Amino acid sequence: MDYEHYFTKRISDLKSEGRYRVFADLERQKGRFPIALNYRDGEVREVVVWCSNDYLGMGQHPEVIAAAHEALERCGAGAGGTRNISGTNHYHVLLEEELAAFNAKESALLFTSGYVANQTTLSTLGATIPGCVVFSDELNHNSMIEGIRHGRSAKQVFRHNDPEHLEQLLSAYPKETPKLVAFESVYSMDGDIAPIAEICDVAEAHNAMTYLDEVHAVGMYGEQGSGVAERDGVRDRITIIQGTLAKALGVVGGYIAASASCVDYVRSFGPGFIFSSSMPPATAAAALASIRFLRAHPEIRDRHQERAATAKRLLAERGIPVLPSVSHIVPVMVGNAALCKQASDLLLDEYGIYVQPINYPTVPVGTERLRITPTPLHDDAMMAHLVESFSAVWDRLDLHKAHHPKAVKAAE
Amino acid sequence: MDYEHYFTKRISDLKSEGRYRVFADLERQKGRFPIALNYRDGEVREVVVWCSNDYLGMGQHPEVIAAAHEALERCGAGAGGTRNISGTNHYHVLLEEELAAFNAKESALLFTSGYVANQTTLSTLGATIPGCVVFSDELNHNSMIEGIRHGRSAKQVFRHNDPEHLEQLLSAYPKETPKLVAFESVYSMDGDIAPIAEICDVAEAHNAMTYLDEVHAVGMYGEQGSGVAERDGVRDRITIIQGTLAKALGVVGGYIAASASCVDYVRSFGPGFIFSSSMPPATAAAALASIRFLRAHPEIRDRHQERAATAKRLLAERGIPVLPSVSHIVPVMVGNAALCKQASDLLLDEYGIYVQPINYPTVPVGTERLRITPTPLHDDAMMAHLVESFSAVWDRLDLHKAHHPKAVKAAE
Ligand SMILES: Cc1ncc(COP(=O)(O)O)c(C=O)c1O
Ligand SMILES: Cc1ncc(COP(=O)(O)O)c(C=O)c1O
Repeated sequence: MDYEHYFTKRISDLKSEGRYRVFADLERQKGRFPIALNYRDGEVREVVVWCSNDYLGMGQHPEVIAAAHEALERCGAGAGGTRNISGTNHYHVLLEEELAAFNAKESALLFTSGYVANQTTLSTLGATIPGCVVFSDELNHNSMIEGIRHGRSAKQVFRHNDPEHLEQLLSAYPKETPKLVAFESVYSMDGDIAPIAEICDVAEAHNAMTYLDEVHAVGMYGEQGSGVAERDGVRDRITIIQGTLAKALGVVGGYIAASASCVDYVRSFGPGFIFSSSMPPATAAAALASIRFLRAHPEIRDRHQERAATAKRLLAERGIPVLPSVSHIVPVMVGNAALCKQASDLLLDEYGIYVQPINYPTVPVGTERLRITPTPLHDDAMMAHLVESFSAVWDRLDLHKAHHPKAVKAAE
Repeated sequence: MDYEHYFTKRISDLKSEGRYRVFADLERQKGRFPIALNYRDGEVREVVVWCSNDYLGMGQHPEVIAAAHEALERCGAGAGGTRNISGTNHYHVLLEEELAAFNAKESALLFTSGYVANQTTLSTLGATIPGCVVFSDELNHNSMIEGIRHGRSAKQVFRHNDPEHLEQLLSAYPKETPKLVAFESVYSMDGDIAPIAEICDVAEAHNAMTYLDEVHAVGMYGEQGSGVAERDGVRDRITIIQGTLAKALGVVGGYIAASASCVDYVRSFGPGFIFSSSMPPATAAAALASIRFLRAHPEIRDRHQERAATAKRLLAERGIPVLPSVSHIVPVMVGNAALCKQASDLLLDEYGIYVQPINYPTVPVGTERLRITPTPLHDDAMMAHLVESFSAVWDRLDLHKAHHPKAVKAAE
């Protein structure tokens, strides 16, 4: 086999399908978010970022940055080892305590990313609990799917956000069979939210554990911001809450929170936790500062929801086909990979607006979209400019306006 | 099933087998490495860390820390997204360019950790190259094993560092069959080094790709420090070089370096790369500074080798059973989990020396050890104290002295 030829061929296939990804080369500007520099074709230009998952701009928050500086001055750069071999720093201990309290659980465990948290926890539970069956929402994130696959336990996929279908699938197994129901709170591409309480009702009736990915909700929902399970008052019904430090918390890393014995179990048997160097002290310190700030400041969550609702309303008023998401995520449907890329390029080139096109495999073919994430730091002038620019691009490319059935509803 | 009961039971089994891990709670001290604070039983005490994988102390290097501060001031904390969705920062681009040059390859790709680099690259190649067979050294690290397993391709395990056995296994397949040989340069628990050129001879004869994990060699071997493949002048014979930014480079993160098309392939198809938030700009900036420094300073590598050789010699002179490793790693054999833990506890409690006991599953049962990693920053006084303390602990616990056959050779 000619390996180079094979790699090149597969890449050129991606290009001809319009699915080849070109990364926007950005330089974030401390304190100026959502403004960033964009390096392109040898030039550097200012753009407004409208697709960041730093949903609340906490990555630019003075207290978060100060905490990172301070820990750097105190402890230096890296942690120096895996958690077991000299790599547990006091900031990790403090952050795990904070995460446990934040999630109203006995204990918490840090991972290098939300991806590794999902992959490791789900594969470890699936592989090591004898006879375990995992029930997985059909739209679960890749990190959950890979973790479940890698665990090689039996698996059942239930229809998206459908407790009745889950109930049917669970009923097929005896009560003694170990079961785990894995799902997300906010689904990041459509912005819809799981019926957590109903899923818990069904899971409890069948003695199943529940695993909730709050990655796109942490910091943004609930009185103190730990997620939708807090908002809905159902945290005690979830066996394991998983989240990321990389999105609304503005840093990087992942975690689970659960009972002390469950966390100790994953800590003791999870390969992706055991065999990997731990996060730098400064990363843990920054995340700690971010959580402490967000727990104390519910008003940032109100402002965030208001900004998202305003963006949806203003876009819908101009006939832009925005999905009626019930969350902070504002998906605008294009439905074609090439057009989606063209719209994104025009927005960047001519309007200084950066919204990355979202194509397959992140979303199904035919649902290609521009996914807008308004933050509390996008002001009214930026919002007006966004809406004008989208309108202009929609006209220039003759894109469909609010044809999408769901979108029409949103415009109502 | 009673899940809590199950978790508790498995944990108590670990405890009764002496395999339950208690993490040392440390606070690294900027500029004072290898000294750190140890939080224990409500007290805080100074210890000398002798088991860090910050092998060169670069995590405390002023240029590395300054680079992190500077990037924090410039860009803030997190990167704000996955690489594709607003999370590519200019520091990532610069670091990938540097990593390519550092490894004398066309291209390089960053991951959140060395673990994810292995897991993602190996599983992606194994899963997506039709009919691929992976040949894996029997002592490969967990991250490689998990990646290979997850790829679900055919797999053959060859005897550790045994090109003849590899040759036998390769011969069983037709030349056209896609093949990948995966191995490490420095094996971190015994400190032995792979015969890279011989493995390449065999791999090339059978048209197999080669995948080399340089995690425990990066920064420490070769004229510019990219690893053992550089030292041995065989980098152009390795298809994919993998490494970490977390050990001798002193920060966190992982990478691969390879041909442009191979890297683009993994970039385009590797789930653990695509679906995870990218590392913070300050992390990338710190790693960049670390690599630049290490490329220009071969003398730190000489000093490192001298320190390791000195530690081995001094310990062997006192009859401490040190493995005759050919690298910077100094494994001292105990051969029993409980004794190993006792020795480590005594060293910490009474001599202020922190060396984590290494037990199963990290090493085979019966080969439990204390793994010492002398760095250029461990001075002669620390070294003398280490040797005295080990001697005293060996006498007090009546541990065997240089019984281990390999150890006797070292003492010769
Ligand atoms: C639902 C979901 N879970 C987990 C992850 C992974 O988290 P992280 O970015 O911290 O790796 C993501 C996205 O990145 C996600 O969208
Ligand atoms: C051989 C080897 N490869 C990969 C890794 C993982 O690298 P990282 O710590 O950057 O996740 C390790 C240890 O941590 C290792 O020992």
